[in-house]
Amino acid sequence: MPCVADEEPAPDLLTVRSRQRADALEITEQVQRLVGRSRIGHGICHVFVPHTTAGVFINENADPDVLQDFFTSLDELVPWVKAYRHAEGNAAAHIKASLIGTSQQVPVRESRLALGRWQGIFFVEFDGPRERQVRITVVPG
Amino acid sequence: MPCVADEEPAPDLLTVRSRQRADALEITEQVQRLVGRSRIGHGICHVFVPHTTAGVFINENADPDVLQDFFTSLDELVPWVKAYRHAEGNAAAHIKASLIGTSQQVPVRESRLALGRWQGIFFVEFDGPRERQVRITVVPG
Amino acid sequence: MPCVADEEPAPDLLTVRSRQRADALEITEQVQRLVGRSRIGHGICHVFVPHTTAGVFINENADPDVLQDFFTSLDELVPWVKAYRHAEGNAAAHIKASLIGTSQQVPVRESRLALGRWQGIFFVEFDGPRERQVRITVVPG
Repeated sequence: MPCVADEEPAPDLLTVRSRQRADALEITEQVQRLVGRSRIGHGICHVFVPHTTAGVFINENADPDVLQDFFTSLDELVPWVKAYRHAEGNAAAHIKASLIGTSQQVPVRESRLALGRWQGIFFVEFDGPRERQVRITVVPG
Repeated sequence: MPCVADEEPAPDLLTVRSRQRADALEITEQVQRLVGRSRIGHGICHVFVPHTTAGVFINENADPDVLQDFFTSLDELVPWVKAYRHAEGNAAAHIKASLIGTSQQVPVRESRLALGRWQGIFFVEFDGPRERQVRITVVPG
Repeated sequence: MPCVADEEPAPDLLTVRSRQRADALEITEQVQRLVGRSRIGHGICHVFVPHTTAGVFINENADPDVLQDFFTSLDELVPWVKAYRHAEGNAAAHIKASLIGTSQQVPVRESRLALGRWQGIFFVEFDGPRERQVRITVVPG
């Protein structure tokens, strides 16, 4: 008897919705759900953002002030208003996204993200609010 | 009948040539070609730069002004001339490379790089002009 | 005859001990040892730091002045003392860790890290001294 479910690819996209120009959204639980459905017990989980003003990073998820300090410091390093050449007005968002990076990798052990005790995975947008996607790939190791 | 071609490893190195001290070169098509030759349909493509004053990043490939703004901002954050201790005169290039990172990962789906619509993969050199290499690894997921 | 050793997972954790608040420790040889024990000849090695004030980066391992310049520049960009909101006093360490990143990937070829001639893998702590862990995953490609 054919098992139709096995022939369909596992879902690998998350949809996230930022709420203001610069926003960070924790996606750890949603990523964990896709890791579980991948049936890969040991390996790496790759979290990728297919957008050019957004990225993904891993940091403390206990104190929201850490995120606020992060955005404030980035704004000082790469101010929104400056003599940029890019005509769309969001050059700072592109530069910040390049500094943070468009993907992160997390070890997978016993089908779970092997994050540290205080770590969370955050989608970060620098030119929102927008609806965006995050693509998850789990590879066995 | 032995198939000799199958016994040879797939090619995995790109050669790039920067044209000035700070330079970014889009390598998306060359990377895609090696992904196709890997015969891996679903997984991750890893793009690695084995040099210490260069890196790789993913950003908008439609407007060259985005790259120009990126280099200008990085120069302000990490100026070329300053009281650095490193005697070779290229300390700023090492620091910028560390901030950008020596590798990127891109999801592979149906044997293609699953980049976003506006994304390109760029080799970036901070102490050129030089001839450099980029090493590609595709892992199945 | 069952081979008990084969049934045990390969070791995948390194312990590192930073010696001052900001410290970088080269871990290339320890990572190479775990790559060798993984018995994976061709693929990617993922080096992950499960802590929120530490990270991992790849840069020149020949001249220690490069590391010193790196820390000095980062301190100027993200000063330790500023009007941060995070109450624990180490906001700068969290921000620096996000800029550097919590993991790196290195190609593996013929069971060896395919690093460039001048590259080393460094664990970096921004709020030490502390004992920390680094988790290694090798995936075949």
